[in-house]
Amino acid sequence: MSAEKIIGVIGGMGPYAGLNLVEKIFDHTLAASDADHLPVALLSYPDRIPDRTAYLLGETETNPAEAISEIALTLDRLGAAAAGMPCNTAHAPRIFNVVAARLRDAGARLRLLNMIEETIRFLKEEHPECTRIGVLSTLGSYRIGLHRRALEAAGLEAVLPDENVQEHIVHRTIYDPSYGLKAQSNPPSKIARQSLLNAIEHLREKGAEAILLGCTELALAIPEAEVEALPIIDPTAVLARALIRETYPDRLKLL
Amino acid sequence: MSAEKIIGVIGGMGPYAGLNLVEKIFDHTLAASDADHLPVALLSYPDRIPDRTAYLLGETETNPAEAISEIALTLDRLGAAAAGMPCNTAHAPRIFNVVAARLRDAGARLRLLNMIEETIRFLKEEHPECTRIGVLSTLGSYRIGLHRRALEAAGLEAVLPDENVQEHIVHRTIYDPSYGLKAQSNPPSKIARQSLLNAIEHLREKGAEAILLGCTELALAIPEAEVEALPIIDPTAVLARALIRETYPDRLKLL
Repeated sequence: MSAEKIIGVIGGMGPYAGLNLVEKIFDHTLAASDADHLPVALLSYPDRIPDRTAYLLGETETNPAEAISEIALTLDRLGAAAAGMPCNTAHAPRIFNVVAARLRDAGARLRLLNMIEETIRFLKEEHPECTRIGVLSTLGSYRIGLHRRALEAAGLEAVLPDENVQEHIVHRTIYDPSYGLKAQSNPPSKIARQSLLNAIEHLREKGAEAILLGCTELALAIPEAEVEALPIIDPTAVLARALIRETYPDRLKLL
Repeated sequence: MSAEKIIGVIGGMGPYAGLNLVEKIFDHTLAASDADHLPVALLSYPDRIPDRTAYLLGETETNPAEAISEIALTLDRLGAAAAGMPCNTAHAPRIFNVVAARLRDAGARLRLLNMIEETIRFLKEEHPECTRIGVLSTLGSYRIGLHRRALEAAGLEAVLPDENVQEHIVHRTIYDPSYGLKAQSNPPSKIARQSLLNAIEHLREKGAEAILLGCTELALAIPEAEVEALPIIDPTAVLARALIRETYPDRLKLL
């Protein structure tokens, strides 16, 4: 038991994205029976975590990093060796770096993986032919250039939606109280899916060679590996694989 | 925070069944945004929990109740007010009663719901016209009469598969190393689904008026509410609703 390495999942951002990460951890594990599956702890406490986008846009001063750190420390006490949070917006440096510092200060053994860094690494390894990467994300991630900066730092070019497409199509697809993915993701509404397909077409016209689904809700509506020959990069799947690699690398399914 | 009632899920029996319970908790919750969803902790430690059927059939002496109790007590320490385990076989009295006693002895505040009792209650409330209930389950549950006894105690009649159908069709659909649901459930194999449809037909011919999916893996292959006008009763969905009712009854979606 002492060698057991639990995989921790900080869920609730949103709830279905947390669930989706756990599902992908199971899907990417080599297992022929129950007992072959890896130990996973999912803490989905959405009521405790303030909205990430609202914080980045200055609509609230409460940094969600506080609540996220508490949950990460609980996972550490449970014995988690590695953890991930399936929420792109929570990887904004003003949030992620605060969580990382808290874990360091508390002497946590848990290693919190960075989903965005893992995604860039995956892009370069698996799709080296793609250098112009289309990005779909929340308005918060868009405004602070979350994915753009990370892509550029890795020598890749970010292809972003025009401001009006971002605000009126992409962001609403996530947040609209009637058809948005945070209100209705199981199953997603047809409007949400069609809006995203339109946004992907918009990015292709602007030169994108691959599409990064830069908000974990988006993969719930676009589960395909490709849309009209454009590779779709799902950071939740990338994070699932990274968590297995960090804990039980010999159990990682080949791609 | 002191009023927060976490819903605990003892997963890993098997992993996808645990995930499926969490998904159903989310699906049956009234929520228009992330923060409206209920706090859920899922501990999926399949490597720690010995096979339930092997214990009931006398193939091993290790009672899985020990490991299950440890996980339940961890959930109690996390602040779970109610918990469920989406595994019918683990509700055999020789397992469930030992877990319940451990929790009592340890002074746990957590209330462990009994999925089988909840399912019988649900049957009587929602399908009072059905008195002959077909049961699909593992061989362990079948041999000890797990569902049969519970149904009879409630004044209902259990319609069970013939012994050869149980052994060669139903049990193999769950445990077969190539096409069984424990080896391959996401998505389930076509053989598994067709075998179950055949077994449902067999139970209908024997007089069943409703089908109780008495193993949580089965709902992964038979997600429908009805098969050829026979109501399909999914104990995982029943347990999800019972957990919401126990913690945040005003957030339970109407059926």
